[in-house]
Amino acid sequence: MTYSVTVRDHIMIAHSFTGEAFGPAQRLHGATYVVDATFRAPTLDDDGMVVDIGRASDALRGILSSLSYRNLDDEPEFHGINTTTERLCSTIAERLVTAARGDSLGPGGAAISAIVVTLHESHIAWASYEVTL
Amino acid sequence: MTYSVTVRDHIMIAHSFTGEAFGPAQRLHGATYVVDATFRAPTLDDDGMVVDIGRASDALRGILSSLSYRNLDDEPEFHGINTTTERLCSTIAERLVTAARGDSLGPGGAAISAIVVTLHESHIAWASYEVTL
Amino acid sequence: MTYSVTVRDHIMIAHSFTGEAFGPAQRLHGATYVVDATFRAPTLDDDGMVVDIGRASDALRGILSSLSYRNLDDEPEFHGINTTTERLCSTIAERLVTAARGDSLGPGGAAISAIVVTLHESHIAWASYEVTL
Amino acid sequence: MTYSVTVRDHIMIAHSFTGEAFGPAQRLHGATYVVDATFRAPTLDDDGMVVDIGRASDALRGILSSLSYRNLDDEPEFHGINTTTERLCSTIAERLVTAARGDSLGPGGAAISAIVVTLHESHIAWASYEVTL
Amino acid sequence: MTYSVTVRDHIMIAHSFTGEAFGPAQRLHGATYVVDATFRAPTLDDDGMVVDIGRASDALRGILSSLSYRNLDDEPEFHGINTTTERLCSTIAERLVTAARGDSLGPGGAAISAIVVTLHESHIAWASYEVTL
Amino acid sequence: MTYSVTVRDHIMIAHSFTGEAFGPAQRLHGATYVVDATFRAPTLDDDGMVVDIGRASDALRGILSSLSYRNLDDEPEFHGINTTTERLCSTIAERLVTAARGDSLGPGGAAISAIVVTLHESHIAWASYEVTL
Repeated sequence: MTYSVTVRDHIMIAHSFTGEAFGPAQRLHGATYVVDATFRAPTLDDDGMVVDIGRASDALRGILSSLSYRNLDDEPEFHGINTTTERLCSTIAERLVTAARGDSLGPGGAAISAIVVTLHESHIAWASYEVTL
Repeated sequence: MTYSVTVRDHIMIAHSFTGEAFGPAQRLHGATYVVDATFRAPTLDDDGMVVDIGRASDALRGILSSLSYRNLDDEPEFHGINTTTERLCSTIAERLVTAARGDSLGPGGAAISAIVVTLHESHIAWASYEVTL
Repeated sequence: MTYSVTVRDHIMIAHSFTGEAFGPAQRLHGATYVVDATFRAPTLDDDGMVVDIGRASDALRGILSSLSYRNLDDEPEFHGINTTTERLCSTIAERLVTAARGDSLGPGGAAISAIVVTLHESHIAWASYEVTL
Repeated sequence: MTYSVTVRDHIMIAHSFTGEAFGPAQRLHGATYVVDATFRAPTLDDDGMVVDIGRASDALRGILSSLSYRNLDDEPEFHGINTTTERLCSTIAERLVTAARGDSLGPGGAAISAIVVTLHESHIAWASYEVTL
Repeated sequence: MTYSVTVRDHIMIAHSFTGEAFGPAQRLHGATYVVDATFRAPTLDDDGMVVDIGRASDALRGILSSLSYRNLDDEPEFHGINTTTERLCSTIAERLVTAARGDSLGPGGAAISAIVVTLHESHIAWASYEVTL
Repeated sequence: MTYSVTVRDHIMIAHSFTGEAFGPAQRLHGATYVVDATFRAPTLDDDGMVVDIGRASDALRGILSSLSYRNLDDEPEFHGINTTTERLCSTIAERLVTAARGDSLGPGGAAISAIVVTLHESHIAWASYEVTL
């Protein structure tokens, strides 16, 4: 038995890609990523929740605010790295793992067994990253 | 190899939550839950189906009709329990398990290996519960 | 030529209806309403906007926060009135009209020619109200 | 009586805005715009269509390909102009008007009475522009 | 001021088109049409509704059941006519007009000022037909 | 840790089903299937991708073009088989497996650990098939 809770938010960023495989996306362009963060747990806490949705939304928003309205090509942490949809999924998911291990998600965070982050880059393409805690 | 079929329906309920973590949701309020019920099986039946979609929809509707247009705070089965989105997912999923083990889903029900129920509480939050049979 | 901008938010409320036409919805139940507020104008302001999306979102959220997480049956303003989806659309739209005529939406508010509010009560039903300024 | 046909596509662009009203969006960032182009006509052609969907899709894609995977701040046509969602709607719509008046949409183009372009910038905000021919 | 209510349902049909403009769609193929029926009125009835959603859904379903799970090429009413998405919109809308003028929609039907039917043929194309009563 | 990328496309087909369980769907009818193809991998390639989205989209489109705008009852490969949504999922997924094992998906194809194909037959029903490579 596995429970999960998902919250949705979004970011709007600029970036470019290095590598012939990217075709016209090698030019500086951008994307809206609609971001779904899923938290899984085998049990519910005393309140009947996987994790408090308000805290989960706040944690996600905090992480996204350090990325949004930016040109990712200028961010030191992404230097020399293609900020593909897949990679941004893992970046955001790993930060949520840190949040879950800390206090940001509240006591429910301790029971989280997996986190999945999905980024929708358009109505016809999306990517995700799943990590087990 | 895993096949699955999902059917969608919805309920409209009132309820309130107990616990400071719920903030304003401690007041009597309500929700539309768009409900997705997924049935998984490793093989298809002789007709080429996981489960008959008509029967699956009817089974789901029957379960939902006992919940919809109600104040869940007044329902004996939820006495002393927070009817969070997560918990309603498990309530509905466990009843579908009973349906699968009985005759409601037809002969295809015998091969079902897992049931997942997802409740969408808004365009930015949803929860799910997965149970293996 | 008409420009428009739409922002989306949501409320979760309890209520009941009076009248045989409502069937089981005469019982206390509830709904999530996903709320779309559209602002129309024949021209754009100096910044190239119909109305600032941030201000529009804040104005909408302010109006919705006075309705959300409540039992509308207990709200004096709705005494003796069925809070149907249609009627909640007009309630919210008229408050946005007041916001547009005041300062809440910024200078762009003066050019707004129409406001439309749509409330989605489920994946299969929604209502709207359009008012010309 | 009015008929309409809508086709959907998307672009991914970088840009920045000038003006304090834009807050963090003054920084170079980007967006995926999911683009809906609607063609209205009072009658159908001999084939029973407002406009051939294949031709309409091709016309839209041709227009979008001159915008997509670009930093709009570097495009001469947008020099000194904020490329807000509203303004990109009108840019695309006016080019579709030219297409409708030329041959790109086929014979059905002659009967088109209005064109509406909607750009979805996220799951919670979109804009549109409607022009009568 | 205009109120509206929309209900959603769907049909699954086979058909083929006559005319070179249709390319591969000249072959027998099929479509799921997700059908949105919108009812507009300048005022609400005594219950606070444009039209009873239950009655509206039933009226729509009745009309759709005479079309669904059929090969429209074999239906006498469509003999010699291309059953394009646009044309099916008008077929369904005109039947809803008849329903509104009769008793099917209840007393609210008398105030309906316009009906709009939208058929979604895929995630990237849809059509609609609007008729004023 | 698992990464995934999903691309979306669609097909429009006619077919009929054999078996009393199918009720009115035993008649010749049709469907639009919105098709989501998901590719999973435990690692990213040197460009930071699971698989090139352009190549994945092209591979999916190639497979779908051999099915779309057809009456599946007339296709030899489906002779004597009910082309249920579940079965079409597996047909498409197995062809993507072949593509992944060949060159069609590029070098990223070698790392793909699973493929999932989901077909949405309406707004209230969908099916999927997952295969591990």
